[in-house]
Amino acid sequence: MAGTYVPGGEAAAWAGGRRRRGALRQRGGQRRACGGPRRFPHHRPVPGSSLEPQESSMEAPAVLEELPPGAAPGKGAHELFGYVGIEAVLDQMRVKTMKTGFEFNIMVVGQSGLGKSTMVNTLFKSKVSRKASQPGQEERIPKTVQLQSVTHVIEEKGVKMKLTVTDTPGFGDQINNENCWDPIIKYINEQYERYLREEILITRKRKIPDTRVHGCVYFVPPTGHWLRPLDLEFMRRLSKIVNVVPVIAKADTLTLEERAEFKQRIQQDLKAHAISVYPQEDFDEDPDDRLLNNVIREKIPFAVVGADQEHQVNGRRVLGRKTKWGIIEVENPTHCEFPMLRDLLIRSHLQDLKDITHNVHYESYRVRRLNESNRVALSPPNGLPGKDEDDSNL
Amino acid sequence: MAGTYVPGGEAAAWAGGRRRRGALRQRGGQRRACGGPRRFPHHRPVPGSSLEPQESSMEAPAVLEELPPGAAPGKGAHELFGYVGIEAVLDQMRVKTMKTGFEFNIMVVGQSGLGKSTMVNTLFKSKVSRKASQPGQEERIPKTVQLQSVTHVIEEKGVKMKLTVTDTPGFGDQINNENCWDPIIKYINEQYERYLREEILITRKRKIPDTRVHGCVYFVPPTGHWLRPLDLEFMRRLSKIVNVVPVIAKADTLTLEERAEFKQRIQQDLKAHAISVYPQEDFDEDPDDRLLNNVIREKIPFAVVGADQEHQVNGRRVLGRKTKWGIIEVENPTHCEFPMLRDLLIRSHLQDLKDITHNVHYESYRVRRLNESNRVALSPPNGLPGKDEDDSNL
Repeated sequence: MAGTYVPGGEAAAWAGGRRRRGALRQRGGQRRACGGPRRFPHHRPVPGSSLEPQESSMEAPAVLEELPPGAAPGKGAHELFGYVGIEAVLDQMRVKTMKTGFEFNIMVVGQSGLGKSTMVNTLFKSKVSRKASQPGQEERIPKTVQLQSVTHVIEEKGVKMKLTVTDTPGFGDQINNENCWDPIIKYINEQYERYLREEILITRKRKIPDTRVHGCVYFVPPTGHWLRPLDLEFMRRLSKIVNVVPVIAKADTLTLEERAEFKQRIQQDLKAHAISVYPQEDFDEDPDDRLLNNVIREKIPFAVVGADQEHQVNGRRVLGRKTKWGIIEVENPTHCEFPMLRDLLIRSHLQDLKDITHNVHYESYRVRRLNESNRVALSPPNGLPGKDEDDSNL
Repeated sequence: MAGTYVPGGEAAAWAGGRRRRGALRQRGGQRRACGGPRRFPHHRPVPGSSLEPQESSMEAPAVLEELPPGAAPGKGAHELFGYVGIEAVLDQMRVKTMKTGFEFNIMVVGQSGLGKSTMVNTLFKSKVSRKASQPGQEERIPKTVQLQSVTHVIEEKGVKMKLTVTDTPGFGDQINNENCWDPIIKYINEQYERYLREEILITRKRKIPDTRVHGCVYFVPPTGHWLRPLDLEFMRRLSKIVNVVPVIAKADTLTLEERAEFKQRIQQDLKAHAISVYPQEDFDEDPDDRLLNNVIREKIPFAVVGADQEHQVNGRRVLGRKTKWGIIEVENPTHCEFPMLRDLLIRSHLQDLKDITHNVHYESYRVRRLNESNRVALSPPNGLPGKDEDDSNL
């Protein structure tokens, strides 16, 4: 019978994506001609191309060739003989994403009157939030926290995003707000559970519908003081299961000095209570990410203003709030930090919000859930004993 | 307690990716103002943008607004008020792929002397295959089918591909070749098993190392006649578990007429024996795919010639085979169909080969495997009864 070679531990390290770009190249010097690349007779270096033997293994020592002593291996780059075209995979993925579309689910939490719905509408340039233009009888504050989800498909430049916005009216609006986070935690976990149940089905859907909350925008009231116990308690609990993005709501009520001070106090508060909001330091993938995210972390929470009215400013139409003393242009970075929030949620970190949700929060839920199940009954099935029985959920 | 809304069946249909582009737009006429988008006072249409309420649901009927009779909803496009930037997700994915790299595993099968190793080296412009330049004692045909895998990292334009090529020396080279496909089937299934075991671990790797065979290139000898029983038997069995890409090896031994006839006979043979090689008609994702793949299916199996020597032709350096009567330029589409094979495997269908492997072949393996396990023991664990107990593997 044939022996089989299966790549092992190094493959895992490679796939982790935590290695710095270029690190692989630097290993060229260690190469040995173990079935590895050798120069072609008429070698023509290709800029930007390199080929590296990452690992190699042979059935028989037969195919192992040693380089003659003194024949130093090449420098690691320029091992490709012409253009292969592997970067075409990027376009292939692009086309697939455009065909399939993608899902993005956000939740907004904060007490009434902080402009949650307006903010969501400002973010997505549309009435995606539930809010009726005029508050009527129906807009009265509910007696318990209600969860309301609205789903829309937004299409831009051929890319379709299925956006679900979940609003939480009633949060923080009661006389006694104890446990008002419970329905929210329940909803978030229910979406993980829903995904998990699809994932463990024997016959699965080709693509599991994703209703998991990728980001939870928490609206801090612009008190200018410190975080309130409710803010701290909510973020402390929620940041363990979801990406929490705190914002200072209705920031136009604060002077620049008040805003800066308030922001600093909030950062201190979060640190003192060990609350890790998005983008979490622990989940930075590499030093580049860290540098970028450090800048963001210094500016969090963004002091935002939302608006769904257009105004005329020097011949331009701008989204803004018109006051007696001027127009606050919400998309003007010198007026407020709304553009930073939009860039974070949509233009720079949307995929990362989804990845952290899938790779970290969902995985944590899954581990908890399966350990729970394991404790109750469950022995591994016949024929699939698992590498480590304690670590298998089959 | 709060009620929760969870998108249901329609979400699944949406995520399936089988709907034609633009289909969503056409549904604009059905819209009702159920929390849906409404025009802003100063509406400014944005080309290429549209917003569609895909589905929406409210906790209370409160937020349902009916349009007044006669107020027809808009045409479905131009609902966005300015640029949101959602297509930035494409760049975010691109950057992530470039950071992480990707894995691609192919296998080459065919009897000795058909140029398998040379072909792989031609494909990847490098000595990625095991073959020593001069066959020595070690190159003798093994007495059983041997599997030999070599892994390299190829980097091009900042994209890193971890390529594993698995060779199968000894296949079809014995006096009695009965069951010579067994070690190959075993290897392929072992990689699925390996992935499955990682996937069902409670604590999983962030990215599961992928050693699954994404494509199996089968070398048909250029007899010019029909497929041999061994070819048919191998492809019949293998096409059920892996993407089989048949090629006519050493096609320079056939005249153009012989090549065309041989190709037609092979197509007839495959059809008569209901062998579905890659790209399989059943797995076309949409009519665009179908059109493209139909063209490819007409040309399969590609009649290829491999070469790892460069020659001078009219001042150009070309990869080719020099004969007394001329140089066969392997990358010249008028000389042979190697460029078609390269384009299929790398430049147009690499991601699709991976997707079909993951979504179809691996899923089939998983279903078989879990059903096997289920029959033996296994009841659903306490607390996770599953929608349908028969369909849960927990």
